[in-house]
Amino acid sequence: MALTHKGLEHEARATRFGEIAAIEGGEVKTVPALRDGARLVVDSWAIARYLEEAYPERPSLFGGPGGEAVTRFVQSWTGAVLHSGLVSLIVADIWQRLPPEDRDYFRRTREQRFGRTLEEVQAGREERVGALRASLQPLRIALQDAPFLGGAQPLYADYLAFGGLQWARTISPFAVLAADGPLQDWLGRRLDLHGGLGRAAPAA
Amino acid sequence: MALTHKGLEHEARATRFGEIAAIEGGEVKTVPALRDGARLVVDSWAIARYLEEAYPERPSLFGGPGGEAVTRFVQSWTGAVLHSGLVSLIVADIWQRLPPEDRDYFRRTREQRFGRTLEEVQAGREERVGALRASLQPLRIALQDAPFLGGAQPLYADYLAFGGLQWARTISPFAVLAADGPLQDWLGRRLDLHGGLGRAAPAA
Repeated sequence: MALTHKGLEHEARATRFGEIAAIEGGEVKTVPALRDGARLVVDSWAIARYLEEAYPERPSLFGGPGGEAVTRFVQSWTGAVLHSGLVSLIVADIWQRLPPEDRDYFRRTREQRFGRTLEEVQAGREERVGALRASLQPLRIALQDAPFLGGAQPLYADYLAFGGLQWARTISPFAVLAADGPLQDWLGRRLDLHGGLGRAAPAA
Repeated sequence: MALTHKGLEHEARATRFGEIAAIEGGEVKTVPALRDGARLVVDSWAIARYLEEAYPERPSLFGGPGGEAVTRFVQSWTGAVLHSGLVSLIVADIWQRLPPEDRDYFRRTREQRFGRTLEEVQAGREERVGALRASLQPLRIALQDAPFLGGAQPLYADYLAFGGLQWARTISPFAVLAADGPLQDWLGRRLDLHGGLGRAAPAA
């Protein structure tokens, strides 16, 4: 979304967990990673900042220095609230949809992190999804006055929050936002962005 | 904080709940309200936007249009998470510190809102304060890389989050942030801003 926002032609390559170690001759430990000529940039936040600095004449991802600073808070919220809330609802669904070669790695590392089986982590999600929906209240309120967190147009802050929900939408059939009109509308607006780029990835 | 950030001389007047209806001949229903010559502006967000527009040559509160848009998310988070979390921990303390003339009004309106007595709302706060501290995780993460949400310097986003904690600090002796090093440091930096403006209001 950030690359397309900037109008930069690019080739996107999906990868498996087991293949990450081989990317760029072992220089990359995590994805996303961006190769741009001589530059290799790893981590989505670092990539967004790189794109903003390297392509200042293209549409801005932050809308100025204050926007970049404050977007860091949206990123923190996305990680601490949205992603961590979502993973506890869909982690076993993720495992089910992984290619067989990645399943052992994923189960071992995630069960170590949670101290429970993936199925135990995900259990009772029908009762817990209400807490996740409640935790999205800041998003609902912020979107009452404008179609995007960036205002009339999306900024990187929108892609941050969108990324979490798109991740859940494409990897799990569980209805995270069911019957949540305002957020469904907002998700729809993001899926429509950049010629429906988000819709190109089908729902699970 | 916003007026001082802009370097604007002003007179701040505290008010009682019972006196709000008389401010500006009844034109004001809520505080804060700002009278600036012919203009009367009510609501802190509206005041911040007004100051930014009316005094563009002064230090910016948002750091550009993207900053203003994204700060709306910080404001939403502050209201939905910080303020609403804090009020359930200190609402009876607030009542205790109100002047006698305001106590009935405050108790009646707040108990109606909560559907319980103030003392019931506040009960068990020692067990619940952990949840509030956990909910501040986005703030902690965002402040790992920079001293302020605005980056090297504070922006209005900082005053938003500061406002809630300053409110709790000055109206209740309850230790909301006890033993929370990173957030204590950040609160200290904010209290020191603008010549210690925040410290001028004593802790409860």
